[in-house]
Amino acid sequence: MTRTLITGGLVVTAADEMPADVLIENGTVVALGLPGRQQWAAERVFDASGKYVIPGGVDAHTHMELPFGGTNASDTFETGTRAAAWGGTTTIVDFAVQAKGASLRAGLDAWHAKADGRCAIDYGLHMIMSDVNESTLREMPGLIGEGVTSFKLFMAYPGVFYSDDGQILRAMQQASETGALIMMHAENGPAIDVLVEQALARGERDPRYHGEVRKALLEAEATHRAIQLARVAGSPLYVVHVSAREALAELAAARDLGLPVFGETCPQYLFLSTDNLAEPDFEGAKYVCSTPLRPKDHQAALWRGLRTDDLQVVSTDHCPFCFKGQKELGRGDFSKIPNGLPGVENRMDLLHQAVVDGHLTRRRWIDIACAAPARMFGLYPRKGTLAPGADADVVIYDPHATHTLSAATHHMNVDYSAYEGRTVTGRVETVLSRGEVVLDRGHYLGRPGHGTFLPRSTCQYL
Amino acid sequence: MTRTLITGGLVVTAADEMPADVLIENGTVVALGLPGRQQWAAERVFDASGKYVIPGGVDAHTHMELPFGGTNASDTFETGTRAAAWGGTTTIVDFAVQAKGASLRAGLDAWHAKADGRCAIDYGLHMIMSDVNESTLREMPGLIGEGVTSFKLFMAYPGVFYSDDGQILRAMQQASETGALIMMHAENGPAIDVLVEQALARGERDPRYHGEVRKALLEAEATHRAIQLARVAGSPLYVVHVSAREALAELAAARDLGLPVFGETCPQYLFLSTDNLAEPDFEGAKYVCSTPLRPKDHQAALWRGLRTDDLQVVSTDHCPFCFKGQKELGRGDFSKIPNGLPGVENRMDLLHQAVVDGHLTRRRWIDIACAAPARMFGLYPRKGTLAPGADADVVIYDPHATHTLSAATHHMNVDYSAYEGRTVTGRVETVLSRGEVVLDRGHYLGRPGHGTFLPRSTCQYL
Amino acid sequence: MTRTLITGGLVVTAADEMPADVLIENGTVVALGLPGRQQWAAERVFDASGKYVIPGGVDAHTHMELPFGGTNASDTFETGTRAAAWGGTTTIVDFAVQAKGASLRAGLDAWHAKADGRCAIDYGLHMIMSDVNESTLREMPGLIGEGVTSFKLFMAYPGVFYSDDGQILRAMQQASETGALIMMHAENGPAIDVLVEQALARGERDPRYHGEVRKALLEAEATHRAIQLARVAGSPLYVVHVSAREALAELAAARDLGLPVFGETCPQYLFLSTDNLAEPDFEGAKYVCSTPLRPKDHQAALWRGLRTDDLQVVSTDHCPFCFKGQKELGRGDFSKIPNGLPGVENRMDLLHQAVVDGHLTRRRWIDIACAAPARMFGLYPRKGTLAPGADADVVIYDPHATHTLSAATHHMNVDYSAYEGRTVTGRVETVLSRGEVVLDRGHYLGRPGHGTFLPRSTCQYL
Amino acid sequence: MTRTLITGGLVVTAADEMPADVLIENGTVVALGLPGRQQWAAERVFDASGKYVIPGGVDAHTHMELPFGGTNASDTFETGTRAAAWGGTTTIVDFAVQAKGASLRAGLDAWHAKADGRCAIDYGLHMIMSDVNESTLREMPGLIGEGVTSFKLFMAYPGVFYSDDGQILRAMQQASETGALIMMHAENGPAIDVLVEQALARGERDPRYHGEVRKALLEAEATHRAIQLARVAGSPLYVVHVSAREALAELAAARDLGLPVFGETCPQYLFLSTDNLAEPDFEGAKYVCSTPLRPKDHQAALWRGLRTDDLQVVSTDHCPFCFKGQKELGRGDFSKIPNGLPGVENRMDLLHQAVVDGHLTRRRWIDIACAAPARMFGLYPRKGTLAPGADADVVIYDPHATHTLSAATHHMNVDYSAYEGRTVTGRVETVLSRGEVVLDRGHYLGRPGHGTFLPRSTCQYL
Ligand SMILES: [Zn+2]
Ligand SMILES: [Zn+2]
Ligand SMILES: [Zn+2]
Ligand SMILES: [Zn+2]
Ligand SMILES: [Zn+2]
Ligand SMILES: [Zn+2]
Ligand SMILES: [Zn+2]
Ligand SMILES: [Zn+2]
Repeated sequence: MTRTLITGGLVVTAADEMPADVLIENGTVVALGLPGRQQWAAERVFDASGKYVIPGGVDAHTHMELPFGGTNASDTFETGTRAAAWGGTTTIVDFAVQAKGASLRAGLDAWHAKADGRCAIDYGLHMIMSDVNESTLREMPGLIGEGVTSFKLFMAYPGVFYSDDGQILRAMQQASETGALIMMHAENGPAIDVLVEQALARGERDPRYHGEVRKALLEAEATHRAIQLARVAGSPLYVVHVSAREALAELAAARDLGLPVFGETCPQYLFLSTDNLAEPDFEGAKYVCSTPLRPKDHQAALWRGLRTDDLQVVSTDHCPFCFKGQKELGRGDFSKIPNGLPGVENRMDLLHQAVVDGHLTRRRWIDIACAAPARMFGLYPRKGTLAPGADADVVIYDPHATHTLSAATHHMNVDYSAYEGRTVTGRVETVLSRGEVVLDRGHYLGRPGHGTFLPRSTCQYL
Repeated sequence: MTRTLITGGLVVTAADEMPADVLIENGTVVALGLPGRQQWAAERVFDASGKYVIPGGVDAHTHMELPFGGTNASDTFETGTRAAAWGGTTTIVDFAVQAKGASLRAGLDAWHAKADGRCAIDYGLHMIMSDVNESTLREMPGLIGEGVTSFKLFMAYPGVFYSDDGQILRAMQQASETGALIMMHAENGPAIDVLVEQALARGERDPRYHGEVRKALLEAEATHRAIQLARVAGSPLYVVHVSAREALAELAAARDLGLPVFGETCPQYLFLSTDNLAEPDFEGAKYVCSTPLRPKDHQAALWRGLRTDDLQVVSTDHCPFCFKGQKELGRGDFSKIPNGLPGVENRMDLLHQAVVDGHLTRRRWIDIACAAPARMFGLYPRKGTLAPGADADVVIYDPHATHTLSAATHHMNVDYSAYEGRTVTGRVETVLSRGEVVLDRGHYLGRPGHGTFLPRSTCQYL
Repeated sequence: MTRTLITGGLVVTAADEMPADVLIENGTVVALGLPGRQQWAAERVFDASGKYVIPGGVDAHTHMELPFGGTNASDTFETGTRAAAWGGTTTIVDFAVQAKGASLRAGLDAWHAKADGRCAIDYGLHMIMSDVNESTLREMPGLIGEGVTSFKLFMAYPGVFYSDDGQILRAMQQASETGALIMMHAENGPAIDVLVEQALARGERDPRYHGEVRKALLEAEATHRAIQLARVAGSPLYVVHVSAREALAELAAARDLGLPVFGETCPQYLFLSTDNLAEPDFEGAKYVCSTPLRPKDHQAALWRGLRTDDLQVVSTDHCPFCFKGQKELGRGDFSKIPNGLPGVENRMDLLHQAVVDGHLTRRRWIDIACAAPARMFGLYPRKGTLAPGADADVVIYDPHATHTLSAATHHMNVDYSAYEGRTVTGRVETVLSRGEVVLDRGHYLGRPGHGTFLPRSTCQYL
Repeated sequence: MTRTLITGGLVVTAADEMPADVLIENGTVVALGLPGRQQWAAERVFDASGKYVIPGGVDAHTHMELPFGGTNASDTFETGTRAAAWGGTTTIVDFAVQAKGASLRAGLDAWHAKADGRCAIDYGLHMIMSDVNESTLREMPGLIGEGVTSFKLFMAYPGVFYSDDGQILRAMQQASETGALIMMHAENGPAIDVLVEQALARGERDPRYHGEVRKALLEAEATHRAIQLARVAGSPLYVVHVSAREALAELAAARDLGLPVFGETCPQYLFLSTDNLAEPDFEGAKYVCSTPLRPKDHQAALWRGLRTDDLQVVSTDHCPFCFKGQKELGRGDFSKIPNGLPGVENRMDLLHQAVVDGHLTRRRWIDIACAAPARMFGLYPRKGTLAPGADADVVIYDPHATHTLSAATHHMNVDYSAYEGRTVTGRVETVLSRGEVVLDRGHYLGRPGHGTFLPRSTCQYL
């Protein structure tokens, strides 16, 4: 048995802030105590004086190695989870993808194969359903039994991931019976595709048109529709990557009715905007993702939504493509730019910056970045909090250190940073994953294969 | 020149109520004057003392001879327009139907052929687009030039009339450019079809299940979606046969934003309910239409919507099928019951009953039944009001007479009445169409071919 | 008998637009006819070719000779009604004032005495209740019997006109029983008085602070409160001079519920803003009125409210005080500036300008300026429309002429114009009051005493 | 040093549920640890196997010995806090009352004198301001310095506790500057008093009329008004004893805007209704409190509000009056019935029953009953949670035991129970207050004077 003690820090969870020592035995938090009071002996002691001691981050939306638009997301599970650890995230939930015509099982096996033995931190898997039909509906309970309890559908991307409203309703009905959670990419794809085609025909081919055709009203429309379908099915709903104020308003209205409707946003929607999409010399391509970045004035609404709990989770939708060779596929045709941004390494810092800026309290920071995603996807209290019995996924966080985000220094396998040159206050100092030190004062001590697959229970908000 | 004088009545229009004489020369109202003051001479004088003198009704939604579910609506243009006249309606706007794969032109020509020379009263035509594509979009301006200025799309009936959201958006964009009005059947067809299939699989086969599967939330959803698509396209929108309180709420919210969104309901939604659908011995089939009848407590919301002008028009969606031989096609499978109710003869009386019952003012009665539909579909002030220059489509209406609605006495070509045995206060006494007497004190004096096609201007609310 | 004929114009009412001749006998419209068709003979013929023929304006909110803040509104009934006629208004409804401690009767008699024999056009009277108590409540039915059917209360001005919520509720209950209409000045006076005192204490003494202390939220609050009290009492409610977007939103929400709640705005809120209040050299005092002018971005909401019928009436709240000697009473203390603006002469022109600018249709112009105020205050159809039987209050309006508003040329007895230098398109050419020519092509032909008191029925929207 | 160990229970806080041992040294929780892992030695060990270990309840709204309507609430600080302890509540916040014309200081001193040395558990004090004026406003910062950081105002009870809107605004402005929290009794008193007088005049004198005259709309109105005034002042707002669905809707709307607006409800509104007020033989008097009980269908809205966090706190408003001799003062005149119910002993059990019934999760139970009131009123994390450093106010709660609420067995000094005969699942087994055992398996071990005054920081939600 290895005993680790973290002393003198301010323990911050979603609920509490308290000066406390944290005692770890092997991979588990076994006790919290008043600082110095219990004279706990330990092989390894970290002095966290002046620092925060927080649960490791839980990033519930990443796409390592995702095939998209004829290329693959540039982070593997190895490089991506390593970068996550650098950024204070100790759990990711990635997306296995069903190929059209194939089974869920085949997709899940393929993703297990990609991840197995390569991850620096623990990971779970959601399942993307590209093809809702009798056969795949029947597969759902089995996957839930294996700990894959959430299923993502797309109202966008006709011909690729798109499900029609009948398919969505069926999947929601199955979710209602089995306890699964339906995750929704909510944009009206058929309407957007018309606007894309018309924009290209008018010669509007630069990245910024990506933001113009994917209209906020069409995100709001799809969000409303998904909510109504979920009401008919009697199922819960989790809307991914909410970016439009109008879509958030639909969630808020549903939640006011007491409906089990949840929403996620991402740092890019909180910190970036259509101004970035409009950067010249095709630089805007770096910021192409869907839902798209919105005009700056949507940001205040999203911050408010996080405060009012109309949004519960901030994930990254980490899906990096290099500018060279990948984003460039869309020169002259924005619709060919691979959709996605890097971010798994930056999330904890950017959200702490929001604490510094007054957008969030410290506790809310931990809630949206650790506790809520863990609860949402059936990992609590093993992940997402610091309490006796929890996995010892712990971050010592220096709230005063500053550093500058840059592709020159980040650890994600991508040739640019979406936040290049932005200085943030707060920095990860030490990271433990199940009691093992993965990172300490700038030294990476992790290894591929330490991270294990996390079978998840169903959503714990229900 | 023929001069007709109607004396001593209370002229009621959407705006005014005044004791006045109405002077008609040939087919046109030429003057209104204080009773008895001008000593107008006339060949024909009607004494309307104690009666209302109102504009003839405008029924903007009928389906004479519509092919549906392997049979045809049982009223021809001849029988249907005659019945309309009996009920005080002097204008109908019916729907020409594009056959899938064929042109709008072919559909329009076919409907002209059905109607030409057979109508007792004037008529216009909307166009049902079954297939929105580049070719049919290009046909729209030509039809508008011929006075067919409104185009109906369906969000229900996949595989039959259904348009997907991309098609709807394109049609709305074309409407935005040309001034056309998009009429929408707003129900989420793909989701409903799933529920239909599941209900039948559970053995739920009686007519009442028609009402259960076509859920109010799915009407509301489609209504919301149509509104958002219209906002994206910058076009107006007219939602037909609104029956659900929740759908009405979507319209009201849009109108509060100042959007050019309009709504129609029908007498069946105001006077009938799911109680009728649940009548035993397959009698419920008489009340099968889509959108379906709703539980009784939706009625109060619809009446309020008519008072607050969140609904502007009451049409009939007249689409009769005989119980024997037609409705019976759906014995044992509610999804095979032809959708539609008779009603063109009953609308003016039922809405006057609503005046008697305190739901509407007299002026609002004329507004929703005459003036608003005329304005909505580009027929004002020729139709829908009584003023110098208007067509002399005039009804002398006895507000005190009572009569009982019944298949035994009605003039529609259908073997049942949806309002069998209901006694109403108020009765049509005399009907003029362009100055010619079509009906007088129970004597029908009209003839097929008197009614002529009305080329319509674009919507006059815009 | 005198016969007057107005030929060749476009008759515009709230409901209709039609080329028509208007035949007048003595003081009454007796017939409308197709142009030229009836060969009507007349002593006096006006050729209105190329002009509009419209009902005379009804200004339902004026304050001639009102005592306020130690001075009196500068227009008498003689000068004020003459100016009204110049501007195309043929009916005003002014406010009799109950003095604190005195009876309604005494106030009404005093106002009759001021108006009798002096008015150029017809006039009605509302009653301001300064003191709701058992005695004044008992007087209400008597006044209604004399045609004073509307009673104004103030939620502002503690110590002067202010009624507390108990008094308001009692008056509304009495209104509910008698059919009276409660008109409400909706601003939270006790809260505003705190802000006034604090602003003055901080040395904020210029006119613009008048706009800052009378906060939009406090207008909205009072509007909401008045609506709730009216719901408890079961009475209708008419909110005067709505200026804040937030207050309008309260009215709109109430109307969506089907409540009998009505709202009025004024040209100053549609055309002026806090920019005017901030004019230097104490010029801002010219624009001091309550509710105050709002920031410019409230204007769009008000225009929209007029289009969506969430506001029904545009009156002037005409209450002029000369800049010299009157407005100047508040130099160095904005709270001492007499509250009020001149405007009775400008309303019809400014609202026609709104037609030119695309804010309103022609028919809506006539509705909000003529028909709706007449209906609201029990004068319809004698006033507010052109139809057989209506009073021959008729304006021939040239829609193409332009002129410039200015104190140099206006006829109100006040030394400034709130719209100085503003050029408008549209001009009154001829004005008839009960068939008598009051104004013709720039010649004033009226006389004091032509105008008679109008006993009014109760609100015709109920 | 005394060491106490609670082993084997399920620790439930607002955030977490975990099997854990709780180690207490003297009056403080010093560590939580995995069950059995640390071999902690202790003088006193409680075996909590199969039980919950929860923070002691915080009842933020009680009125011990309150003078009201010529009598006094029947529980003294001694009897009332003892009863609280019996019910698992270890902290109360009671209300000191300013007498009209006297200073806050005098009122606070008087209440300190009543409580000092008599309480079984710790207690804080809010301050009721009966008279907002320059002098009392100036006293506020001093009281905050002494730990009285919340001030209650009344929009009801004109002539007694009532503040007008100007006074409310001033107090809120002062709160905004000093960090104080304004607590509001939100009912429109002046309007209600009119209705009371009229009801009595009509001979409506039974207790049930108390519920009829204090209309839900007038609670909603006052709630809306308080919110708007708080917005003007820039201050937070806490609305006490929310009972009407419509009032809750106002809070929810404000919170959707991100405003710092909070709401409390009470068990009586969740479990009782106007049916109780209507109990015959004057029994309804037992349920007379203000805001009043509402019709049963309001309950679902309140439960929903607790789940959606539109309501944050459940307090009791404990204010008992004996049926004999006290409630009876209002026989024949409901307005003379002293307002208030007993409940301080029943809150934790009733809310656990709500967990059993599925209205709340276990964690939400602890949140609304312990953590949220502690945070709201500046007592966190000393009170309201179990964490190293917290006061050892701990309850061992048996979730399976059942018992029956009854005046025969309760410990409150009042001759009836509002929940007489109701059987609940769940029972307090052991209660510690700052480490001392107050109650253990039906034996009361506490003493007057153990409880000490809690100076509170300002609201911790801001
Ligand atoms: Zn997505
Ligand atoms: Zn994604
Ligand atoms: Zn249809
Ligand atoms: Zn139809
Ligand atoms: Zn006023
Ligand atoms: Zn006024
Ligand atoms: Zn209270
Ligand atoms: Zn209380």
